[in-house]
Amino acid sequence: MNIREMQRSSIKGLKAYDPELLANYRYKVDANENGYDVPPLARKKILKEMKKVFFNRYPDPGAVKLKGILAKKNSVSPGSIVIGNGSDELIHYLLQAFTDPGDIIAAPAPSFDMYSILALANGATPVMVPLDDNFDLDEAATLKAVNGAKFIFLAYPNNPTGNCFSRGKILKIIKAAQGFVVLDEAYFEFSGKTFLPLLKKHKNLIILRTFSKAFSLASMRVGYMMADPEVISIINKVRLPYNVNVVSQACAAVMAQTAIAPVVKKILTEREKLYSALKKDYPVVKSDANFLLIKVNDGNYAKKMFEKSGISIRMFKDGRLKDFLRLTIGTPDENRAALAILKRGV
Amino acid sequence: MNIREMQRSSIKGLKAYDPELLANYRYKVDANENGYDVPPLARKKILKEMKKVFFNRYPDPGAVKLKGILAKKNSVSPGSIVIGNGSDELIHYLLQAFTDPGDIIAAPAPSFDMYSILALANGATPVMVPLDDNFDLDEAATLKAVNGAKFIFLAYPNNPTGNCFSRGKILKIIKAAQGFVVLDEAYFEFSGKTFLPLLKKHKNLIILRTFSKAFSLASMRVGYMMADPEVISIINKVRLPYNVNVVSQACAAVMAQTAIAPVVKKILTEREKLYSALKKDYPVVKSDANFLLIKVNDGNYAKKMFEKSGISIRMFKDGRLKDFLRLTIGTPDENRAALAILKRGV
Repeated sequence: MNIREMQRSSIKGLKAYDPELLANYRYKVDANENGYDVPPLARKKILKEMKKVFFNRYPDPGAVKLKGILAKKNSVSPGSIVIGNGSDELIHYLLQAFTDPGDIIAAPAPSFDMYSILALANGATPVMVPLDDNFDLDEAATLKAVNGAKFIFLAYPNNPTGNCFSRGKILKIIKAAQGFVVLDEAYFEFSGKTFLPLLKKHKNLIILRTFSKAFSLASMRVGYMMADPEVISIINKVRLPYNVNVVSQACAAVMAQTAIAPVVKKILTEREKLYSALKKDYPVVKSDANFLLIKVNDGNYAKKMFEKSGISIRMFKDGRLKDFLRLTIGTPDENRAALAILKRGV
Repeated sequence: MNIREMQRSSIKGLKAYDPELLANYRYKVDANENGYDVPPLARKKILKEMKKVFFNRYPDPGAVKLKGILAKKNSVSPGSIVIGNGSDELIHYLLQAFTDPGDIIAAPAPSFDMYSILALANGATPVMVPLDDNFDLDEAATLKAVNGAKFIFLAYPNNPTGNCFSRGKILKIIKAAQGFVVLDEAYFEFSGKTFLPLLKKHKNLIILRTFSKAFSLASMRVGYMMADPEVISIINKVRLPYNVNVVSQACAAVMAQTAIAPVVKKILTEREKLYSALKKDYPVVKSDANFLLIKVNDGNYAKKMFEKSGISIRMFKDGRLKDFLRLTIGTPDENRAALAILKRGV
């Protein structure tokens, strides 16, 4: 048996996603995690929940309790929500449920790599639309791309650039699109901007949220999707029935009811301090998220300097993002350490 | 937008998997869970691990520690292992990575429903081969079905029948198959029978194991696959990078190092007691797993009687399994309660 030949044709050229993380680090500012762990009271509640877990029993396949909390919090019906093992899984389910081989999946570039990787992994054809000089949507090109596309994925704010695309352009896209428009609002709690109020008006609008960023739960892998109930019921056809484990459901329920505004505020204050300190020396994108995209002089040298100091950052190597690094806004200690290197010149 | 029309063609006829669980119950013997929760010492270790979790950090995408433990335990290389968010996810990945639309997926019937559901959800064509009168493989029909099939899925022991198929027949199938032969050994710890020693000899052999049954971790969703390293590296192309969360990895690591033989022995002793008590009154399949398949006189009446007593069981309604119920061997209390109803005649 030639195992390689057995592969699905559409994934033969695909490479595994590589988060490119540094193995040993002192500071980790490479994955847009929250530098602050869950607050002490929430941690106490989580550990209390864990003590009550029946480890031998399957999770609630409908995640009824968590969906109830999220429905109330977001003023939507529980039938408009599905929970995922991270938003990644929900992006995958969308593609699995709604794309036939060869269907076009549009996304701006640069953006979150998983859109195109998962499109390919599902036999669809990704079409990347370059952002304009300000990393905003190219309106004409995007409108052209969504014509005939099954999906367009828009990270809002965008990752790795950090900015929110123009609201007016997105509205035009939602109205013009024949397929679904997925607003990936993974960093919504930092931007405060959302398309959620338009969900009822536009059947083709899909909103993704996550507990991995502002809610400090990257470890537990919980994302959720809000969409027309008919979209949700089709997703449930391909969803693995027990996709979200007991502890993740419990942790997300605790954090959904925990005030995160103080932590978000701390991060935003630090972000603005860093932005001000850096923009004199480097091109830096004005950010609506918990990270900054910075163009350094020499990417390889910068990476080395960060590694030498035990700081794991995300460095981009190719195309338009060559010599750009993405710096997660962490704790003041982490930020100071990163700033010191950048101030020395890299 | 007509959302239904947007669906992938191959899933239009698909229905969401329904575990058909009773909402309120006193005893739950419907999902082949372990009636015994993790042992006290393991629970202590798990809670200790949880206290150390950095909730704000992503899990190890490579699950290196857990794979190391499992590699040692099973005498295979870590490169022969991939961890899944339950075995369900691994079955899905196999289909996603290796089937093109229309590829044939063979499985005996009756068997685990997810093989055909996930085949359909991935655009493949399930071909079910009826088991013989003893619920063993029909050798000729199965050999014919694997000719040209991309996969055959064999649950070993089989679910919901509980028996292990003849080893000799499976060996012939492994040798004759042009595609992959997946031995789903979810209940291996109860049967003690495995094809693992043949893994190196047959490149087309794939073994699935789970922590959801004998290891009392259904809540945490951890399964694993052992296969040729080339199969594993292709699975890693479609695997979501952070598919197994931090706590699930930690729980599985603890349980992989916990002696489960005493619990398994208790369950097997109870199973034989129940089997002996029931076989005079009902056709019961001799079981290699932690459950019994029993043919009652009237399925609807039986279901009502169990529900009335607050016992959630799995009842089959259609085709060859009409009036068969699958009873998980639980704790002595659970078993006594189920036996009492069966002894009254249903």
